[in-house]
Amino acid sequence: MKKLKRSARLVEMTQFLLHRPHTLIPLTTFAERYSAAKSSISEDLVIIKEVFEEEGMGDLLTLAGAAGGVKYIPRMPKSISLPIIEQLSRKLEEPDRILPGGYLYMTDLLGQPALMNEVGKMIAAAFADAHIDVVMTVETKGIPLAYATAAQLNLPVVLVRRDHQVTEGSAVSINYVSGSNKSIHTMTLARRALKEKSRVLIVDDFMKAGGTIQGMIDLLHEFEAVVAGVGVLVEAGDIESDERLLSDNDYISLAKLTHIDFKTKQISVEPGNYFEGMKK
Amino acid sequence: MKKLKRSARLVEMTQFLLHRPHTLIPLTTFAERYSAAKSSISEDLVIIKEVFEEEGMGDLLTLAGAAGGVKYIPRMPKSISLPIIEQLSRKLEEPDRILPGGYLYMTDLLGQPALMNEVGKMIAAAFADAHIDVVMTVETKGIPLAYATAAQLNLPVVLVRRDHQVTEGSAVSINYVSGSNKSIHTMTLARRALKEKSRVLIVDDFMKAGGTIQGMIDLLHEFEAVVAGVGVLVEAGDIESDERLLSDNDYISLAKLTHIDFKTKQISVEPGNYFEGMKK
Repeated sequence: MKKLKRSARLVEMTQFLLHRPHTLIPLTTFAERYSAAKSSISEDLVIIKEVFEEEGMGDLLTLAGAAGGVKYIPRMPKSISLPIIEQLSRKLEEPDRILPGGYLYMTDLLGQPALMNEVGKMIAAAFADAHIDVVMTVETKGIPLAYATAAQLNLPVVLVRRDHQVTEGSAVSINYVSGSNKSIHTMTLARRALKEKSRVLIVDDFMKAGGTIQGMIDLLHEFEAVVAGVGVLVEAGDIESDERLLSDNDYISLAKLTHIDFKTKQISVEPGNYFEGMKK
Repeated sequence: MKKLKRSARLVEMTQFLLHRPHTLIPLTTFAERYSAAKSSISEDLVIIKEVFEEEGMGDLLTLAGAAGGVKYIPRMPKSISLPIIEQLSRKLEEPDRILPGGYLYMTDLLGQPALMNEVGKMIAAAFADAHIDVVMTVETKGIPLAYATAAQLNLPVVLVRRDHQVTEGSAVSINYVSGSNKSIHTMTLARRALKEKSRVLIVDDFMKAGGTIQGMIDLLHEFEAVVAGVGVLVEAGDIESDERLLSDNDYISLAKLTHIDFKTKQISVEPGNYFEGMKK
């Protein structure tokens, strides 16, 4: 790459870092890329770090020493995330979203990649320091959120299927009981999809009693993997406590469906436990 | 936002534009955001535009006049995209990927969000000027690619289901014949998921004879929607011409599986028709 002026270098370095979250980039990479002195690169990084922090985009960690470099850790302050979730909540309260069984029609919202990327960044920020190896979800609706989260953490996604895909070789299947209507389902994961001892972040779009999530947790035990966290976009908060399979400390939720009145078609959605105790 | 120096402004504007592809941003938005004169903003944009073009990140279109502003159009030059696809092809040629029925195990690669974002950008670049309204795919494996493509085009994703989801209201179902083994399947799309006359880009991870794609095209006719394009990651190129449901002009492919030898486990993968006639 030809020698760039500082202004051009700042633009290029910004895009380079944004496209490589949670990736250690040695200063020499930048120095060679731009034919610039390491001292100049360091000065550039100070400027970028300041803007990233000021604008709530995340941290730029600088690691000193021979194996050192810089790492971009996406974060999102409450001042940015809460208004996004408030806006989403108002949309979820639209009366024609009520579906049979106490579910909400969310397909239109889950179909917006920009929104998924925002909420994925929120979940990623919550687990930025949890040493996750892989993000896991079960088909189908949680997939975009799982990918958006994994992209911000620079991690792969493992997808649990609801049927047995014979095309993927040997697999582990488990039965699980969907907590809300007590029906029995099967979920399957290919043997080669997940390494033993992996630290796994489970992501899904909606959680009612938690049966599907519990199914994924059970499946992870079969792989001797570790559940490092659970993140859901919306939890149904009006579940009787004896029906709940997960306790409040076991997961984070971005929004909470606190009430549905089928007669009046009134829906109430509030910010989830993600925001509890969050300072700014 | 407080007044920023030019250097900080460049960092902030770069991230702002990268997060909003195919979105017209009035200069006044930037001027107010940074308490800066429009003339300064224009100078900043010249610098950013130069870097974006030089590095093959895309175009920064400037639209003059009262309704004017700036729009970031993601592009990817062949010098960046071809090496990514060459590397992917070598991975796809690993002998243990052969699955029954002439399919390839691609789950591990499809599970890499960073790779999906790269190839999604390639497909998005090919259809940047095709006036697409919505990106469509059928569950399950094409979903990450469809979202990655749609994100770069600032468009929603519509997901065709393989079963009828009673929870989503009235729906249109069609039967289609999977071209390779002639089995009959059903695909379903909720009525409220797609507006009539929409211009639709169909995206999928793998295309053999084209039966699944043809099914989506048939489904779109039921919605009186327009097929504005078809993009697939890998096409099987060793299909007899009388079995092929789509002709070469009907779709773009990023990679082409030209040969599988089940006995010797040899696989050959070449760049797809996406690269034909592409200059740089």
